Amino acid sequence: MKPVLYGYFRSGTTWRVRAALNYKGVAYDYVPVNLVKGEQSQAGFKARNPQGLVPALEVEGATLTQSPAILEWIEETWPQPALLPGDPMLRAKVRAFCAAIGCDIHPIQNLRVLKKVKALTGAEEAGPDWARHWITLGFEALEEMVSPLDGAGGFLFGEGPSMAEIYLMPQMFNAERFGVDLEPFPKLVAANAAAQAVPEFAAAHPSRQPDAG
Amino acid sequence: MKPVLYGYFRSGTTWRVRAALNYKGVAYDYVPVNLVKGEQSQAGFKARNPQGLVPALEVEGATLTQSPAILEWIEETWPQPALLPGDPMLRAKVRAFCAAIGCDIHPIQNLRVLKKVKALTGAEEAGPDWARHWITLGFEALEEMVSPLDGAGGFLFGEGPSMAEIYLMPQMFNAERFGVDLEPFPKLVAANAAAQAVPEFAAAHPSRQPDAG
Repeated sequence: MKPVLYGYFRSGTTWRVRAALNYKGVAYDYVPVNLVKGEQSQAGFKARNPQGLVPALEVEGATLTQSPAILEWIEETWPQPALLPGDPMLRAKVRAFCAAIGCDIHPIQNLRVLKKVKALTGAEEAGPDWARHWITLGFEALEEMVSPLDGAGGFLFGEGPSMAEIYLMPQMFNAERFGVDLEPFPKLVAANAAAQAVPEFAAAHPSRQPDAG
Repeated sequence: MKPVLYGYFRSGTTWRVRAALNYKGVAYDYVPVNLVKGEQSQAGFKARNPQGLVPALEVEGATLTQSPAILEWIEETWPQPALLPGDPMLRAKVRAFCAAIGCDIHPIQNLRVLKKVKALTGAEEAGPDWARHWITLGFEALEEMVSPLDGAGGFLFGEGPSMAEIYLMPQMFNAERFGVDLEPFPKLVAANAAAQAVPEFAAAHPSRQPDAG
């Protein structure tokens, strides 16, 4: 029974799940949920996920939500090829990198928060300014968290790509979209390039999804 | 060699780590980092954690950061008593509950974000209003994510407390501090009460820390 992924082509958290499934070689069906049209807040989708957020992954008759939880489930269900290193301390480093994006950057620059910032200030530019502020602050820490680069082959931690790259790619995409100055972050830029060269990750890019518009 | 926890009594993310260590029966040393005085942003602490955030856990000569990563490391290092259920689908449900707080509520109502909201609007009440908005929105989803309550003994998932309670307690504390109306969330209130009755969790409460002021 193929998993069914509910998501949106430009959703960074959906992108993470696509990248992980591709990397594990797991075939899945994809059901687009149009965030711009507000489909995530409609009763049909909220019955599936009360948070009204994508992604949601339907497996074995249940619906998994929250990309960090889905990614851990994927790693437990299909351990190879691994997205977390075997060494516990290195696993913790990878997970810390992921959480620094997944908790402290991405949700603060998410669409629903930017809408609220705009509503509060009434200024069109307030949202993008806000996003640039938090992404830049977060990237300053991330650039140091991989200093010196632990990985070979241009990857952040270990010999191959890991969950760290899976979190980095969509966040870097957002950084570019908001016009964040990436010059101070050469390690992140290099790691992102290495990640994009992995075919399974490249296939997870928003531009290559059926709902890309 | 005892782990050393760098944290702050009222930091919700430090609270999570205290609760987990206590529950596992792991003795640790505690080094307060005064967030109100800005000690987390000083060079001494940032050498330890480039993000300038608590908690940080020093173990085996390394420093672990980001509470979600630290909690997973604790669970892997001291598997019993378990804070994650054995069943993979239930693990995913617990982790989703944790992430719904750890990604989509807590960081958005964190002190540094509230300061920014206040700076943007110039209004004293804008920060607390903002916090109440995101906590309420998040709790509406959480209340449904535990419907019907999966656990026995008043716990959220399974027979005993889990990581879900560890995330819930500090978030509920913040909700009360900001004056969120908790009437619509009877399940969360009940689960929080059950969690506070666990002695190892009670000992992790901010009021019982050496730096409580």
